[in-house]
Amino acid sequence: MNITGEMLIGQSTARGTEGTFRAINPATNEKIAPDFSAGGKPEVERACTLAQQAFDTYRETTAQQRAQFLEEIATGILALGPTLIERATQETGLPPARLEGERARTVGQLRLFAKVIRAGHYLNTTLDSATPERTPPRPDLRLRKIAIGPVAVFGASNFPLAFSVAGGDTAAALAAGCPVVVKTHNAHPGTSELVGRVIQQAVAACQLPEGVFSLIIGNGNEVGQALVSHPAIKAVGFTGSRQGGLALMRAAAQRREPIPVYAEMSSINPMFLLPHALAARASQIGSAFVDSLTMGVGQFCTNPGLVIGLAGEHLAQFQETALQALKTKAAGTMLTPGIHHAYVAGVERMSAIAGVSSLGQGLAAGAPCAAQARLFSTDAATFLATEQLEDEVFGPSSLIVACRNEEEMSAVAEHLAGQLTATLQLDNADHALARKLLPTLERKAGRILVNGYPTGVEVSYAMVHGGPFPATSDSRSTSVGASAIERFLRPVCYQDLPAALLPAALQDGNPLGLTRLVDGEFISA
Amino acid sequence: MNITGEMLIGQSTARGTEGTFRAINPATNEKIAPDFSAGGKPEVERACTLAQQAFDTYRETTAQQRAQFLEEIATGILALGPTLIERATQETGLPPARLEGERARTVGQLRLFAKVIRAGHYLNTTLDSATPERTPPRPDLRLRKIAIGPVAVFGASNFPLAFSVAGGDTAAALAAGCPVVVKTHNAHPGTSELVGRVIQQAVAACQLPEGVFSLIIGNGNEVGQALVSHPAIKAVGFTGSRQGGLALMRAAAQRREPIPVYAEMSSINPMFLLPHALAARASQIGSAFVDSLTMGVGQFCTNPGLVIGLAGEHLAQFQETALQALKTKAAGTMLTPGIHHAYVAGVERMSAIAGVSSLGQGLAAGAPCAAQARLFSTDAATFLATEQLEDEVFGPSSLIVACRNEEEMSAVAEHLAGQLTATLQLDNADHALARKLLPTLERKAGRILVNGYPTGVEVSYAMVHGGPFPATSDSRSTSVGASAIERFLRPVCYQDLPAALLPAALQDGNPLGLTRLVDGEFISA
Repeated sequence: MNITGEMLIGQSTARGTEGTFRAINPATNEKIAPDFSAGGKPEVERACTLAQQAFDTYRETTAQQRAQFLEEIATGILALGPTLIERATQETGLPPARLEGERARTVGQLRLFAKVIRAGHYLNTTLDSATPERTPPRPDLRLRKIAIGPVAVFGASNFPLAFSVAGGDTAAALAAGCPVVVKTHNAHPGTSELVGRVIQQAVAACQLPEGVFSLIIGNGNEVGQALVSHPAIKAVGFTGSRQGGLALMRAAAQRREPIPVYAEMSSINPMFLLPHALAARASQIGSAFVDSLTMGVGQFCTNPGLVIGLAGEHLAQFQETALQALKTKAAGTMLTPGIHHAYVAGVERMSAIAGVSSLGQGLAAGAPCAAQARLFSTDAATFLATEQLEDEVFGPSSLIVACRNEEEMSAVAEHLAGQLTATLQLDNADHALARKLLPTLERKAGRILVNGYPTGVEVSYAMVHGGPFPATSDSRSTSVGASAIERFLRPVCYQDLPAALLPAALQDGNPLGLTRLVDGEFISA
Repeated sequence: MNITGEMLIGQSTARGTEGTFRAINPATNEKIAPDFSAGGKPEVERACTLAQQAFDTYRETTAQQRAQFLEEIATGILALGPTLIERATQETGLPPARLEGERARTVGQLRLFAKVIRAGHYLNTTLDSATPERTPPRPDLRLRKIAIGPVAVFGASNFPLAFSVAGGDTAAALAAGCPVVVKTHNAHPGTSELVGRVIQQAVAACQLPEGVFSLIIGNGNEVGQALVSHPAIKAVGFTGSRQGGLALMRAAAQRREPIPVYAEMSSINPMFLLPHALAARASQIGSAFVDSLTMGVGQFCTNPGLVIGLAGEHLAQFQETALQALKTKAAGTMLTPGIHHAYVAGVERMSAIAGVSSLGQGLAAGAPCAAQARLFSTDAATFLATEQLEDEVFGPSSLIVACRNEEEMSAVAEHLAGQLTATLQLDNADHALARKLLPTLERKAGRILVNGYPTGVEVSYAMVHGGPFPATSDSRSTSVGASAIERFLRPVCYQDLPAALLPAALQDGNPLGLTRLVDGEFISA
């Protein structure tokens, strides 16, 4: 498959008129051919109009049809073989092994959603029997969820496959029955086109309406704003910076018809070192923590950017082990020159804050966008008094907060803004303290881990990759796992519909074989 | 129980310092004793702080404890007996029989939510088994939903019991585990105080933290804005005007931490008369339609304010029957002088629109706030060209739109903004046309009815009282029925928690006896 630099509008390709740009190889800062032509409002208009036209047909395709479509996309992505991995490596600086893992995850997500829609629990089918003898008679009421409408998905820089063109939001939206218009992340336009063409071909192969998928390329923020503002778009999925997420939230709220925005924005993912665990295995935790911190050059949304422990010899030992481990870590190439620049600036800001000490750093950077890992420390009083210390420094940098006692540890937990994750390192003897912290952490985070590290995000039924603001714009939702389909659905109730007009999911006899809530009880097929 | 005119802040009462006001009897325009003292930011601050303090304890009460609390409130409301009905009649002009029915519904809602939390499906308990043999090992992941936080509820004028202090939003929030701060509707402050005191007493009787419930009285919009802007508040429930709902949406979006607003705002509830049904029973539908239109002086969110049919003799017959029925309808007292004023103004605006004919009206109004029912007609071309015709006229007024053909009927459906309901009057021979309209109506409405009238809203499992903007601010949610609990919940995932730290809902052995999704399959206890 060739990369042509074109947008994909339904089954057509298009060149924009808003200038051209090239991807940059962050390992060398060199531009990579070909030119990508940026589009604008006309392309957004065409893509959204096609999406709207496709919507009623696409949302009523059978679960089997949509599952096959998702599986076709998964197969197509694998069939790109080394072409995809090579291009993605060039555009992101991520090593091939990591990208192969991410490809497997992307394919796994698509296949999980195929399974989810075949099972059909997401439809929330609910039936209340009529009681004609009652005064007044109770009507026959049946609820199912339907797709919310065409969805705008913004590709993320840090997962060029799993959170990008065919990433979690696209998979969840397509599974729900929503056409998708993707705005590519300009850091990996070639990767985006390759995957986009796979989806475009799958749409044709599955004989779906062409508007089910389009791929828009744009320079600057205008195209994104135009996309979110288009009346056909009914929900937005975004993973990126807080600034970017807030801008989309504002645009969506200012529409004539406001729409939900699912923006995953920033999280520093606190890790609490409880005293008995710390006493028992400070070095082991310190070393594993640095592995988590530096994995993928720290460019994970769940990167552990904050460590909280009780001051003393064990925390000192943790710090020392972490520091020794850090010093051996090679500087890795970050995703883009912009991200690298922001990391350097963030680390400088951190160094300049009164009361914060720089503990040390990883191996020196040799390549243009390579990031040296960093460790800082401070005390709880400084942390509680310095709002800036809660700002995410995207990359392999973390801050250790030393508390004088358990009360300060609780105060730090209570002080935190919303997070994707919170981690507890604990032993049995720490359970009493953990019980004190857990209610706070439940209010603060979407996922709570014990004796693990937050950087692995399993794609499964029970995963929550979300959390209170500013981790995300909507704590009621997750962007990873089977429940992610819920963000693109809304309920509709049917009252006294004749059998011939009822959707299959709600018909007597349960032709789709669903588990349904009937008069308040789950009834399996 | 005496009405003292005080606010209820936790277990205390408070008098505000922002002036006093009295309720007005809309049947006479006379003020009713006693004085109510309006509060401001200090009372909001105290109520919200108490709510925040109560939250962690209250949300972890057992389902049984919260169910008993809801049932205690229900019993207490019934125990108010005629005191409540008499005061509510004075404050709203609604007849005692209607208020007794609404009381039964309010009590029924509380008891339904008691049942919902005892069943526990709302927890969405989801367990993924660990697979330690996999590379990398899959952790043990368990998801449950938890309460979102303290909730601000704004009482609605048109249901002084069922959508007010102990109404649907309060019942759903308390069931979910959220403390509630109610801002009373100033049209029925005495009714609010009576019900508020019942809840306050139930909090004490059930030995719950006092911050679980507070009742704020305020003049003007400042108190409401302060409440929505308070950092402790994590969600908002509102039923009222579009202007009011939009103001709360703006306030919530402008917070440092934006929060969800569930505003149910305005809907004209289109009813489509399909040709065969119209030919067969134009008179019957016309007469039943006017009953629905004038029920409760048209002051239902689901009042049928728009009728769409094919021009011709049958539509003329429908119109004529409706008109004759309308002419016999007495003018009913509206809820407040303000609502009556707005109705008169809305009807005047409608009369003045070019292309709209006034068909006739109900019996003349004798009392100060009495509203004469009105019927208007226009053609589809005018309707499609006149945006104003989609504005809700709150009260017993409806507009009949005559279409030249089925295509125009479809165009009117497609033109509509979001609605709470859409109704089809149809016979078997109309199914083909219904199939054309249904996909559009599914996109436009939260509930679709066949051969009924939208004004009855059943409180059950499958009900959806919601719909796309501007009917509500959030089409993903319902304000009536068992699913309303979902608006006040968010998911949390627990990774590798030791058994001793897991919430009961997620423990091995299923001690709560829940139906849980285990590795993708529903497993009943």
